[in-house]
Amino acid sequence: MHTKQSIVQHILKNKQKLPGKQSAEAFASSNIALCKYWGKRNDELNLPVTNSLSMSLGEYGTRFTIRSCEERDDILWINHEKITDNSPIKKRLSHFLDLFRPDPDFYFHIDSHSNIPIAAGLASSASAFAALIKSLDQLFCWECTDTELSILARLGSGSACRSLWPGFVEWQKGTLDNGMDSHGVPLNVTWADLRLAIVMIDQNPKTISSRVAMKSTVDTSPLYRAWPDCVSQHLVEIKSALMTQDIEKLGRAAEQNALAMHATMMSSQPGIIYSQPETLKIMQQVWQCRAENIPVYFTQDAGANLKLLFTTEVTDAILARFPQV
Amino acid sequence: MHTKQSIVQHILKNKQKLPGKQSAEAFASSNIALCKYWGKRNDELNLPVTNSLSMSLGEYGTRFTIRSCEERDDILWINHEKITDNSPIKKRLSHFLDLFRPDPDFYFHIDSHSNIPIAAGLASSASAFAALIKSLDQLFCWECTDTELSILARLGSGSACRSLWPGFVEWQKGTLDNGMDSHGVPLNVTWADLRLAIVMIDQNPKTISSRVAMKSTVDTSPLYRAWPDCVSQHLVEIKSALMTQDIEKLGRAAEQNALAMHATMMSSQPGIIYSQPETLKIMQQVWQCRAENIPVYFTQDAGANLKLLFTTEVTDAILARFPQV
Repeated sequence: MHTKQSIVQHILKNKQKLPGKQSAEAFASSNIALCKYWGKRNDELNLPVTNSLSMSLGEYGTRFTIRSCEERDDILWINHEKITDNSPIKKRLSHFLDLFRPDPDFYFHIDSHSNIPIAAGLASSASAFAALIKSLDQLFCWECTDTELSILARLGSGSACRSLWPGFVEWQKGTLDNGMDSHGVPLNVTWADLRLAIVMIDQNPKTISSRVAMKSTVDTSPLYRAWPDCVSQHLVEIKSALMTQDIEKLGRAAEQNALAMHATMMSSQPGIIYSQPETLKIMQQVWQCRAENIPVYFTQDAGANLKLLFTTEVTDAILARFPQV
Repeated sequence: MHTKQSIVQHILKNKQKLPGKQSAEAFASSNIALCKYWGKRNDELNLPVTNSLSMSLGEYGTRFTIRSCEERDDILWINHEKITDNSPIKKRLSHFLDLFRPDPDFYFHIDSHSNIPIAAGLASSASAFAALIKSLDQLFCWECTDTELSILARLGSGSACRSLWPGFVEWQKGTLDNGMDSHGVPLNVTWADLRLAIVMIDQNPKTISSRVAMKSTVDTSPLYRAWPDCVSQHLVEIKSALMTQDIEKLGRAAEQNALAMHATMMSSQPGIIYSQPETLKIMQQVWQCRAENIPVYFTQDAGANLKLLFTTEVTDAILARFPQV
């Protein structure tokens, strides 16, 4: 039986156990999946049922500054605000840091800055866990490979394993029980004209976490068993579209993938609907744009907000029609 | 290869070929499926992929008055309005009536009255084709059984085969190629306290017909293949809930069935979303009611409107919270 602890020990077995520096700082971009990660085959190790594929948000993400802490507890600051001990986010981070303490009385002081809203379906936890693991790598002078960091980040939050690289990254689901082959792999693709814009509909934290929604879908949705084949088909289309820079093909596959993911949630018991009335309005607007030959597509994560996919050719038209992006 | 014509000839082979009366009149109730009909295994004969189960709307439905017509074309009146020849509804009815003309120059005069909005997901075509076939049975003095009329009505519109009876009706999908075992079967259940109320969100005809949406789902939705098992499970739950008059069990299964049907549509290519922003608002209100221990559930057909399921015990609470029902 593999545990997070045993995987961390395996990866760090010949690495430094004590900090090699006073403090360390690292940044990781958020990533938005064009083909979604939805469903785990192993809840403890965050091993997914399917591959997924994301696009980096570049300068949007999270920066961590980390150092050892004199006090008898971890100290966490997020965007200049000190987080209290009973906050779920503090508990989650401390629990994750337990994997890396040189001894049980070693605590961390963490200062985190995010330029994206937290827990609103904008992949804030992905960039946070990726930035955290990068800053730990520097603090302890582990000199891990990006692939090793991707696996470690995955133990904190699944999609964090895609935030170790810029551009397009595929998370290979892997087949091993210990998850050592389940990590991000950067794609050799550049597409300078492609744009991803966020339509903010709701900045509030979501009412149901994506982790809980994902588990409920896998456990109760009668449609979920068709999801893996669905992803395989979308992945082929998305990768082929990235190679040929075909926005229509990319957009169509990404949009259908997002709708299919939300369809599996909607049919879970009880039904989960992240969309708000405004979400549907924006979807209709996107479809109206396409009816007028403006190639724009949407994707939606576990939240009410939409992300628009388009190329720079139509940026002006998009800004005119979606002033809220 | 069976055709509508061959099925009609088979059923009517020993019946009267000419009208036995001057005119005839018949009424059929609309029906709302608690377990939906979504997908055909035979497009020509309207043979479904799965069973479905409905509840009659009682006094809400369509009344047809029919007689032979002296003019050289069918004449159709709907709610005191004469329908023009190129109207899709006129074409569809005349095409269906072709199956029953004693000779090609025999035309019908039809006067139809509906007390439900047409083509807004309120099963208007179900009650129309059921009332039409009942009025033809009387006009020609066929004296068909209800089961035969159910099969004939199904040739006009699938769900019409459930509108031949009051109360709860299961449409047995059947297994024969000629569809002679695919018809409504009334359930031996009464539940006097059960209520179904319609929340009108949009009275306009829908932008995509349920026939087209159904076909697109079957042909393109990667999640559709999980639908038949989903229906089997919901049918067991719904029938058991009807037997024990368990509103919670009934409502939960019916609501999940509707959401799963819309989930299959949402994941079709292109995605089909009948819900409007207001639809989502009402869904959230229904869920809020349940959080406050008011047992009310929704179902949704191929349209933006919702139907609420509850028992008379909470009628006052429902009317207070949903003044638009």
